[in-house]
Amino acid sequence: MIQEFFNLEIKTNGIHLYEFTNEILNWIKLNKFKNGILNISIQHTSASLIIQENADPDVQADLINYFDKLVPMNNDLYTHTAEGNDDMPAHIKSALTNNQISLSVKENNLLLGAWQGIYLFEHRIQGQNRQIVLHYLGN
Amino acid sequence: MIQEFFNLEIKTNGIHLYEFTNEILNWIKLNKFKNGILNISIQHTSASLIIQENADPDVQADLINYFDKLVPMNNDLYTHTAEGNDDMPAHIKSALTNNQISLSVKENNLLLGAWQGIYLFEHRIQGQNRQIVLHYLGN
Amino acid sequence: MIQEFFNLEIKTNGIHLYEFTNEILNWIKLNKFKNGILNISIQHTSASLIIQENADPDVQADLINYFDKLVPMNNDLYTHTAEGNDDMPAHIKSALTNNQISLSVKENNLLLGAWQGIYLFEHRIQGQNRQIVLHYLGN
Repeated sequence: MIQEFFNLEIKTNGIHLYEFTNEILNWIKLNKFKNGILNISIQHTSASLIIQENADPDVQADLINYFDKLVPMNNDLYTHTAEGNDDMPAHIKSALTNNQISLSVKENNLLLGAWQGIYLFEHRIQGQNRQIVLHYLGN
Repeated sequence: MIQEFFNLEIKTNGIHLYEFTNEILNWIKLNKFKNGILNISIQHTSASLIIQENADPDVQADLINYFDKLVPMNNDLYTHTAEGNDDMPAHIKSALTNNQISLSVKENNLLLGAWQGIYLFEHRIQGQNRQIVLHYLGN
Repeated sequence: MIQEFFNLEIKTNGIHLYEFTNEILNWIKLNKFKNGILNISIQHTSASLIIQENADPDVQADLINYFDKLVPMNNDLYTHTAEGNDDMPAHIKSALTNNQISLSVKENNLLLGAWQGIYLFEHRIQGQNRQIVLHYLGN
């Protein structure tokens, strides 16, 4: 059994879905991982992880728009307001999506569906440097 | 350490929760898995995975009804409309639930609560053939 | 490869976020785990798991308040009402958050962000004894 860790930093520039499927695939290829589990965890609670369709970019725009309506940026709704009107909604959107995702690797390939991409979902307006840990356990 | 993979196909017939707890338990028994992690991942973004109460079927009906109200099928709300008025809501419901679940196996048994069942949550109206990957890593 | 299991019981006292980050850290230290995956699963569907900011307690209060508004306790909305007006909302809130979380352990440390805490999110009003399984697989 081998284990490898990698710290992936993604610079964000506002509320958006940032795909990093290729960064993960490259890391798997580079390390010649055969079969195992890849655990992906984001080290923040105002950005999150999501697997979504990577074919039509309208899907991503609609997702962002939906979550913006579901969790309004209105400081009257929250008591945690000191970090800006986008911070508490960011924590809630993070709770509604994922902090971590575990994926299966088989024969040096990630077992994802044909249209699935892996995204960082940034919920803050200001640019951020986001830290994502990749952890592989397998052979 | 051993690893096994299994592709489970579930034919769906509209928006519904399709339980597959027994299929998983049978696979664990058949392979005589002792202790390990079972990673379950769905290869789609318009259907998802959910662990829910399997005692009263009303719980499942209420869940479906709740998600239908939370994410309306109304094309005026979305730009991604080419695949039907249920497709974008399907992607959103998928984002609000799970693409993958990791469960613990101990002494050839799945560590689930007494009332917990594992379901595929189909979000599309038309029948689909859904692919779920089971991946076991343990001894 | 080693594997260890631990049954963590948390007594709850109403709708609230109950942090158990330290219980997990202590278990990792006590067992001298080096590198591996820690799978945390809750054995219930009316309470859930969540990773959230542990700095400002207002974040937790706002989260609870948000989920209470998003999933109203109103028996007119549900058919599953026999277990009280908080039970069906509890199942829905559980579906919107997490039944299980997998975290990475590196050099006897949990790879969490600076402000991330691990919480049991209790959705029932009456006090409960909640069972959480910790399962470590690594070296």
